[in-house]
Amino acid sequence: MKLQSIKITPIAFRDPPLLNAAGIHEPYALRSIIELESDTGQIGLGESYGDAAFLQLAAALQPRLVGLDPFNLNGLRERVLDVVKGTQVDTGTEFLLAPGTDPVKNVQKLYSAFEVALLDMQARHLGMPLVDLLGGRVRDRVPFSAYLFFKYAHHIDADYPADAWGETLTPEQLVAQAQTMVQRHGFGSFKVKGGVLPPQDEVACIRALAAAFPRKPLRIDPNGNWSLPTAIAMGKQLDGLLEYYEDPCPTLADMAELHRATGMPLATNMVVTDMAQFRDNVPLDACQIILSDHHYWGGLRETQVLARMCEVFGLGLSMHSNSHLGISLLAMAHLAASVPLLSYACDTHYPWLDPNEEVIRGGQLKFLDGAVVLGDAPGLGVEIDQAALARLHAQYQTCGIRSRNDAAQMRKYQPDWSGKAPRF
Amino acid sequence: MKLQSIKITPIAFRDPPLLNAAGIHEPYALRSIIELESDTGQIGLGESYGDAAFLQLAAALQPRLVGLDPFNLNGLRERVLDVVKGTQVDTGTEFLLAPGTDPVKNVQKLYSAFEVALLDMQARHLGMPLVDLLGGRVRDRVPFSAYLFFKYAHHIDADYPADAWGETLTPEQLVAQAQTMVQRHGFGSFKVKGGVLPPQDEVACIRALAAAFPRKPLRIDPNGNWSLPTAIAMGKQLDGLLEYYEDPCPTLADMAELHRATGMPLATNMVVTDMAQFRDNVPLDACQIILSDHHYWGGLRETQVLARMCEVFGLGLSMHSNSHLGISLLAMAHLAASVPLLSYACDTHYPWLDPNEEVIRGGQLKFLDGAVVLGDAPGLGVEIDQAALARLHAQYQTCGIRSRNDAAQMRKYQPDWSGKAPRF
Repeated sequence: MKLQSIKITPIAFRDPPLLNAAGIHEPYALRSIIELESDTGQIGLGESYGDAAFLQLAAALQPRLVGLDPFNLNGLRERVLDVVKGTQVDTGTEFLLAPGTDPVKNVQKLYSAFEVALLDMQARHLGMPLVDLLGGRVRDRVPFSAYLFFKYAHHIDADYPADAWGETLTPEQLVAQAQTMVQRHGFGSFKVKGGVLPPQDEVACIRALAAAFPRKPLRIDPNGNWSLPTAIAMGKQLDGLLEYYEDPCPTLADMAELHRATGMPLATNMVVTDMAQFRDNVPLDACQIILSDHHYWGGLRETQVLARMCEVFGLGLSMHSNSHLGISLLAMAHLAASVPLLSYACDTHYPWLDPNEEVIRGGQLKFLDGAVVLGDAPGLGVEIDQAALARLHAQYQTCGIRSRNDAAQMRKYQPDWSGKAPRF
Repeated sequence: MKLQSIKITPIAFRDPPLLNAAGIHEPYALRSIIELESDTGQIGLGESYGDAAFLQLAAALQPRLVGLDPFNLNGLRERVLDVVKGTQVDTGTEFLLAPGTDPVKNVQKLYSAFEVALLDMQARHLGMPLVDLLGGRVRDRVPFSAYLFFKYAHHIDADYPADAWGETLTPEQLVAQAQTMVQRHGFGSFKVKGGVLPPQDEVACIRALAAAFPRKPLRIDPNGNWSLPTAIAMGKQLDGLLEYYEDPCPTLADMAELHRATGMPLATNMVVTDMAQFRDNVPLDACQIILSDHHYWGGLRETQVLARMCEVFGLGLSMHSNSHLGISLLAMAHLAASVPLLSYACDTHYPWLDPNEEVIRGGQLKFLDGAVVLGDAPGLGVEIDQAALARLHAQYQTCGIRSRNDAAQMRKYQPDWSGKAPRF
């Protein structure tokens, strides 16, 4: 079996005006959809970043994949290393909110995007769900948490109507958002994307959630937007209310000091985002929980390695998310179901997706009691709705966005916005 | 596809009177040959330990494997954990020369034995060589080193004629042994199993090898039989002659001190033999090279994890060996060919195997210029010679040995032998 066709389709989908430490989401989020086909007619699907820099690398890799044996992951890595070494890219990103936009991760990002599609093809070839190829399911249901955002009611510059969620800027509005999430999807835990309001107001939001959902685990993620003194002060108020405290401070050294000062379990997808940082974290004991993301950790097999390393070094493991569609959600779920160590419900932006903006046949995936339930269909278990893909690709062509820039978008609302972190 | 038949055959094969820190090899070495067959007629082969304790565990596991999907490695692990938890075993081993006889490794040993056979079955099912299932070959030839032993000319109590190697107790005899190894197999590097003669005599042997083979890498492995002062003193004489210095001292703390004192790269298969010890080694920087062994590290996939961890933590990687037959050699070679980081030629006892004592069809495997060359046949690429297997099983039944005990064997030559290490 050899790869015969490699199709990479950039898409744009509607994204609500969600606030974060770096600014605000633009009206459209970008992704790429990868469709592989072998000489035997087997398909393999993937989903990854859709910014210009990633697409440039993917386009450079594309012709080199023709003829590759889909089981030859070492061959994929060699080609990726070659392409990344030989390609100059400009990310055009002002601030690095998530490691997905960091060019030092180009190898991991590019490899992962195609590794997932190759593993999907392998599993389809074998007629088995992806999780079974990955070692077999240790769980059938992968729990996700409700990802709560502060948000405006509408974009300043969208060419489409406002979303139905409305504004979320107060504790009452956040509790209402959480209630909607639970009603719709059955989530059993909550994550608040913080670093937006003054820290004391965000603590008040956590207290309101704790009062409204007394037995449900809570988390806050200020995205490195709190200074160490602020993080310590807020930590003392939050201690006992959180299952973990995610990335309040922007550096590994600050996180280490925060853990020493508070004893709270600290989670990260900002200061331990690759193997070198994993190594650096060991002697510091800065972070106790790694929020993995196969899109930038270097694929599903590498995330399995990471999971094993977390076991060995006594760390917890869960999953980070960027705005994404169902293929990424399924890749996360199949991976998570294969990993013995999964300490917490995973993050996902999926509930923020407009119901009409999914590229998989049959439309959006459903959560059951907050979990993705794995089926028995081969591979990722889904097919592409080509009409939907074409529609989102057309949207990409017309939306004008080519790289995510939450800070520039925020300046449309607040012209003096700097976005520098930590702001508080 | 489901497992239908699981056959575990203990075998005994002739082993020369090889000397080591713990004593001397007995006239027969024990192994087990694992033959799996699926409901679709697919086979999977494995080779592992053959001592009574291992066989007891394997027998307890055997019925629980019927019906297992051969891709379900997590399912294998669950069953292994269950069996090891519920089985009392007595190793009957006096001194732990190699971690393969350490009962704390029961889970890893039992899992590995069957994981290899399941992966072989997976690869045969896919019609691809095992290395290709493991991620694709980064090399076609896996280099091995000549494993030189001090030895007596004949066993004190064998029921068969002496081997053709004769005695090796002097530098001249060791150089002659090395020359024979090179002539027969083309090895490009040498490992001396030390900890046998007075250390100064073993240093003289290394000097003789360096003079006879001026450009070939050398190693010495005193198997923890040198005290720290001896190891430092010998290290100063050996520095510059060795590519690495293997397990001179018996503890991680001594190895750390030795590395600090000499700066020499230290290799180990004695003090870093599992993930917890890997973790402990990191802050100590005791050992710089891990000699992996899939038989007790927990299988091929876990050794791939180990290889990645060695990359992350800046360690070198090669492979340890016990007395073994061709199935183990091929499993090592397929694994090694899939691992980007393979820093040194691997160890193997295979050249010490009597030419008539192999269980694979076609007889003994050949080294080409010291390397195992991987072919294109599915899985491990070999079949069992059932007549040869039956012969070696009959030998097992009559040989009287049930657990390796090099110290007890040595007392037949030297009744006052204690075998306590470090002796020098």
